[in-house]
Amino acid sequence: MDTAISEYMEQLGRRARAASRAMARADTATRNRALTLIAAAIEREAPALRAANAQDMEAARANGLAPAMLDRLALSDKAIATMVEGLRQIVALPDPVGEISNLKVRPTGIQVGQMRVPLGVIGIIYEARPNVTVDAAGLCIKSGNATILRGGSEAIHCNRALARIVKAGLEQAGLPADGVQVVDTTDRAAVGALITMPQYVDVIVPRGGKGLIARLMAEATVPMIKHLDGICHVYIDAKADLQKALDIGFNAKCHRYGTCNTMETLLVERTIAPTVLPQLAQRYLTESVELRADAESHAILAAAGYPHLAQATEEDWATEYLAPILAVKIVDGIDAAMDHINTWSSKHTEAIVTEDYSAAMRFLREVDSASVLVNASTRFADGFEYGLGAEIGISNDKLHARGPVGLEGLTSLKYVVFGHGEIRS
Amino acid sequence: MDTAISEYMEQLGRRARAASRAMARADTATRNRALTLIAAAIEREAPALRAANAQDMEAARANGLAPAMLDRLALSDKAIATMVEGLRQIVALPDPVGEISNLKVRPTGIQVGQMRVPLGVIGIIYEARPNVTVDAAGLCIKSGNATILRGGSEAIHCNRALARIVKAGLEQAGLPADGVQVVDTTDRAAVGALITMPQYVDVIVPRGGKGLIARLMAEATVPMIKHLDGICHVYIDAKADLQKALDIGFNAKCHRYGTCNTMETLLVERTIAPTVLPQLAQRYLTESVELRADAESHAILAAAGYPHLAQATEEDWATEYLAPILAVKIVDGIDAAMDHINTWSSKHTEAIVTEDYSAAMRFLREVDSASVLVNASTRFADGFEYGLGAEIGISNDKLHARGPVGLEGLTSLKYVVFGHGEIRS
Repeated sequence: MDTAISEYMEQLGRRARAASRAMARADTATRNRALTLIAAAIEREAPALRAANAQDMEAARANGLAPAMLDRLALSDKAIATMVEGLRQIVALPDPVGEISNLKVRPTGIQVGQMRVPLGVIGIIYEARPNVTVDAAGLCIKSGNATILRGGSEAIHCNRALARIVKAGLEQAGLPADGVQVVDTTDRAAVGALITMPQYVDVIVPRGGKGLIARLMAEATVPMIKHLDGICHVYIDAKADLQKALDIGFNAKCHRYGTCNTMETLLVERTIAPTVLPQLAQRYLTESVELRADAESHAILAAAGYPHLAQATEEDWATEYLAPILAVKIVDGIDAAMDHINTWSSKHTEAIVTEDYSAAMRFLREVDSASVLVNASTRFADGFEYGLGAEIGISNDKLHARGPVGLEGLTSLKYVVFGHGEIRS
Repeated sequence: MDTAISEYMEQLGRRARAASRAMARADTATRNRALTLIAAAIEREAPALRAANAQDMEAARANGLAPAMLDRLALSDKAIATMVEGLRQIVALPDPVGEISNLKVRPTGIQVGQMRVPLGVIGIIYEARPNVTVDAAGLCIKSGNATILRGGSEAIHCNRALARIVKAGLEQAGLPADGVQVVDTTDRAAVGALITMPQYVDVIVPRGGKGLIARLMAEATVPMIKHLDGICHVYIDAKADLQKALDIGFNAKCHRYGTCNTMETLLVERTIAPTVLPQLAQRYLTESVELRADAESHAILAAAGYPHLAQATEEDWATEYLAPILAVKIVDGIDAAMDHINTWSSKHTEAIVTEDYSAAMRFLREVDSASVLVNASTRFADGFEYGLGAEIGISNDKLHARGPVGLEGLTSLKYVVFGHGEIRS
């Protein structure tokens, strides 16, 4: 690796570690004041931010960036207002830091509990969207962490401008400016350095595509909280309420196509399939959803005259379409459904539609995914809907934080002991 | 890597993953029955176990294993009784699996909670002690996980015999024998394979020396719950109660020398040092503890005529002695003490002795270690003393599990949603 980059990143790391102590020590009011000051400054400096963004957009267009990426890079007035509103919502959330739980007196006389504390230094690696800079900084400040932000090189001008605002807000509130640092180089080697300095960085939160995650999984020595793909399933059980099945089956697919909690495979119990599938297909028709059906469901849907029909292959069970396409399969019952899910799912979110108590309880217990729902759309699997207030991502990992990750996911628990002079005998 | 080893490990992994579903699904009574059957079989087959252990001991002696290692390898009648008792204690612990917490109704009508579930497959890598095979298997069975155990090659005969007993117990209880697998090769490549199959192994718990941990940190792609060294501190504050300071200062060092929660550095506030140090030295004298003192404390201790005295160097602040040796340093007050701790500690366990409320509260909040104690000996930092019932190790990590790791540390939380047909609008 380039020595200059490696030294630069080492310097960021050392500064972040030093700042993390002051961030962790700061009281609630101080951290909230910093967030409030930053929100006000972003409002005030909106013209400067838009100018910086215009520079990024111009360079991106010159480099032939795809329209979808340009769209993500653009910082509109509305996007700025949303960032500001997001910070104010974070201010309003309860402070997770310092809370002591499970306090109990032990036979020896000591009193043992667990205190929620910041993780320390959080590294966030993301792509073009400049709003992530502010959302992530806000969550890290609120949870008492120092953070190193590595945004996409396309957004470097805008991220520099945001970094300046954030640092000023921290300093005005009496916190170290190094509490939030933006990696100020577009050299890709900076990512390689960030993910291999466990002495300075406690956790990496990658927010990006499969390519980024794959690279990090191969190279990182710092632990990660990963947001991966969502191959989500809805299983319509024999005992499903027909109306709920139609509503959920439609909403889970068609409410939004590009989100990770969108249904990608529909499983239908065999005996109910001839009733459910044709009616559900009428709904999908309004959205021209392409149905990739296994042999049995294909026969039913073809008989019903569904126009956008294809044969499913095994690849369909493993695909996150993020589009008006849905894989459909008929199964024998709950065991076959759970077997399919535990084999093909990305362990993000799955739902069952049923009025059968035992089927619901088994599905909740035995499906090995971050979110498991009974009689509700997979689209609810999200930090805001779950009441976390804000989220930094949805974790497909099992360790530390699983499912939507809010402020708690950015903290750890340490044991605290209140004694009275006790010694071990 | 040797293809045969790599294929063998892949096979173990595939079997463990398959078995993990049945382990997770099993009810409390079934898992407890397996543990009870295994405990009874270990008692019954003690002679066969001792014979297997004798084979291991003979080979170890022939290979010139160090006496301390031979001691750890030996399986005495008492060690067997302790294993059996340990399993019965695990049976008596409450089942963590299936518990639902934080259940709340959201404005949309859905009810969201978190269900405690097994992690899946846990890989445990340890050294000579055969009792770890049974302790670890017991904790993993109770927490509904499948496990792959890789013990030290010195204990291979004994571990094979134990594996046979454990598998028989699982099968008699109606659980898959592959719920617990012992790696049946002494080839070191097996470890390399185990730590790089995230598709089959959810977490690695290494229990071994620094060399093992360093190797795993460099090579593992499976996340780890690490047990590292304990460079633990006691800080005697200006407002300390003298009697508590003497009791805790002596107990934290001299109760046991070889444990990770033993104090290795004593910090004393400057104004109280001339009073505390000579009296504490009298206690240390009874155990001939070598004191490695900074200049100021050296002067006080030399004046008091303490015989086992040396000058501390910076290396002493970073050393886990595991012996009757103690580093001693005089500090200006709580800020200097916390600064020393947050710089040199291994973030395992630290204690303050003080009657000052604000000093106690600041120490609890600001010291970044897994266990922080006020007016109690560091020796309390242990799963049994904290009431976890049993522990698989003490984690120095901040993610997932920090401090003593019991059954909860071997589980994860998934979100469960009870709906009534809700869809997102």
